[in-house]
Amino acid sequence: MSSNNTAGQVIRCKAAVAWEAGKPLVIEQVEVAPPQAMEVRLKILFTSLCHTDIYFWEAKGQTPLFPRIFGHEAGGIVESVGDGVTDVRPGDHVLPVFTGECKECRHCKSEESNMCELLRINTDRGVMLNDGKSRFSINGKPIYHFLGTSTFSEYTVVHVGCVAKINPKAPLDKVCILSCGISTGLGATLNVAKPKRGSFVAVFGLGAVGLAAAEGARISGASRIIGFGVSEFLCPKDFEKPVQEVIAEMTDGGVDRSIECTGSIAAMISAFECVHDGWGLAVLVGVPNKDDSFKTHPMNILNERTLKGTFFGNFKPRSDLPSVVEKYMNKELELEKFITHEVPFSEINKAFAYMLQGDSLRCIIRMEA
Amino acid sequence: MSSNNTAGQVIRCKAAVAWEAGKPLVIEQVEVAPPQAMEVRLKILFTSLCHTDIYFWEAKGQTPLFPRIFGHEAGGIVESVGDGVTDVRPGDHVLPVFTGECKECRHCKSEESNMCELLRINTDRGVMLNDGKSRFSINGKPIYHFLGTSTFSEYTVVHVGCVAKINPKAPLDKVCILSCGISTGLGATLNVAKPKRGSFVAVFGLGAVGLAAAEGARISGASRIIGFGVSEFLCPKDFEKPVQEVIAEMTDGGVDRSIECTGSIAAMISAFECVHDGWGLAVLVGVPNKDDSFKTHPMNILNERTLKGTFFGNFKPRSDLPSVVEKYMNKELELEKFITHEVPFSEINKAFAYMLQGDSLRCIIRMEA
Repeated sequence: MSSNNTAGQVIRCKAAVAWEAGKPLVIEQVEVAPPQAMEVRLKILFTSLCHTDIYFWEAKGQTPLFPRIFGHEAGGIVESVGDGVTDVRPGDHVLPVFTGECKECRHCKSEESNMCELLRINTDRGVMLNDGKSRFSINGKPIYHFLGTSTFSEYTVVHVGCVAKINPKAPLDKVCILSCGISTGLGATLNVAKPKRGSFVAVFGLGAVGLAAAEGARISGASRIIGFGVSEFLCPKDFEKPVQEVIAEMTDGGVDRSIECTGSIAAMISAFECVHDGWGLAVLVGVPNKDDSFKTHPMNILNERTLKGTFFGNFKPRSDLPSVVEKYMNKELELEKFITHEVPFSEINKAFAYMLQGDSLRCIIRMEA
Repeated sequence: MSSNNTAGQVIRCKAAVAWEAGKPLVIEQVEVAPPQAMEVRLKILFTSLCHTDIYFWEAKGQTPLFPRIFGHEAGGIVESVGDGVTDVRPGDHVLPVFTGECKECRHCKSEESNMCELLRINTDRGVMLNDGKSRFSINGKPIYHFLGTSTFSEYTVVHVGCVAKINPKAPLDKVCILSCGISTGLGATLNVAKPKRGSFVAVFGLGAVGLAAAEGARISGASRIIGFGVSEFLCPKDFEKPVQEVIAEMTDGGVDRSIECTGSIAAMISAFECVHDGWGLAVLVGVPNKDDSFKTHPMNILNERTLKGTFFGNFKPRSDLPSVVEKYMNKELELEKFITHEVPFSEINKAFAYMLQGDSLRCIIRMEA
């Protein structure tokens, strides 16, 4: 299946292993098994750090699963492929994605959904679907996968349904950030909120996802983009006026579209209540806490407002990401402004520090020295 | 402005006056003043009774406004028109509507909204917009209007923006029910839920509005229409299983569309949570209580469900109702099945009794003996 000399062999390479929750990653020599049926092995060239890595590395809200190799935003090249893989071949440039597209299930066949039944995000699973085992090990001891991607490794194994084949001319050190956060925010606007030219858009949360939602609003020709920078979102009761009332006053009744990218339940409610009656649409992106409850007076809904949730910006990874990369190549989409830092793989823990301090939007981790 | 001999004159005619909350209407001789600027005076031929009339007649939840002439579903003929009225003229067949379309405001100019700023439903107002006065009186004492329509009268005065001019061949004793409830349910499905051919649709509430929503699903070619007859909706906690779980089991994960036509907050939540993730859309029609709160776990939204409210089925009264009448004329839409009773005007209180006992869907009140 492959023209290179590593195909079918175990590859020994460097990976950043998280041995314990919240402890610095350790660069280790790991063994990466060959890809099995419907799997591909990738050589990762660039990866970046996303809040979701931090969240599961801190393991404050979930069952901890360690040792684990994190990482899910990346760009790489196919090294070899397993049985049954026909869509990509060694040498293809790809973006691995934390959620997949089997192309067979009801969701993949629906025009509206991207929540593939087979390959939908699973944060608890640390093994591959095919045999329920890990492809990573150190001296025979398995190291868990993360989101089916584990891109903090020079080589990784991914289900073919989680791999988007892209234009080989696209610079992987830039387009790698389209693997997750940037596409999530961008797609929330372009695919779901769909603001018309000249409309007013409010964005809650000005991290990478929120700024990407704002970039989508810019691309759509919104005439006003109102952003709320929220590192911590306070309960609206603590303000003199609820945010939604402030927005209603600023915009003669409310914005046409709002996009919530924080996961704060108070921001979700504000985002919904700040859209104009008659035509306003609020799109929820941010992931809430387990015990949150979305509450609003039903008249806010009946007055012809719409509330819609989205996952990964409603992009189907294999079908849609290649065209997002083309948008960047055609200079319709700006990516450089999201990349605030870059570190070599050996200094990956610095990327964690930048994000934890709130200094970075995206820090690119360069795998080759 | 008119070729008949009553134009410009006060008309003395019969009207059913509600003198007190919850007391039988009394047929009285009333004076109906001529239409002022942008108003039209209608001769009502048929009217029907809707729950909203009952609700405001009982006056349990609102500030009572009496004496008042109720009625807002009707069919009639233009008797005369006031200054500035160019869209209709004496002799035109029309449906008066409880909400209007000025054709000038942002809502009227939006493709998505029908919530006209000038003529949006106002249940508290008992007078005409033009001069803040009533056109009805008995011996000089004003009688309040209801919803700008007051169709329980042989003649009434309505803003021209609340009048839909329809095909004069349409039988007014049938199409009069398109003034409110039937269009509300039908439009919720056809204009908002928009189920695809072959899809699964759940309808909560099987009064006239809910059955009209189901009729919309039938017209759309839904393959399964699951109805919940709800005269009282109990809290889902009282059942062994929440309704949404029962539906999920029946339909392999949920329906494609749901339409809530009861106004019960528990039904609203069930209607939202019973739609399939990835593509499900719930449409809320029923009007809730003042103190209700819509609550759901935000993950139900984030899993790519959509929640949308609608008002009068998103129909713009003047622009869209004529074509709904044509659907009936072309036998695409059935109306006869909604009409369960008919009474002469003198027996209008029987129509109230039929509805209060839950015996009727729609009772047609014939104005001429």
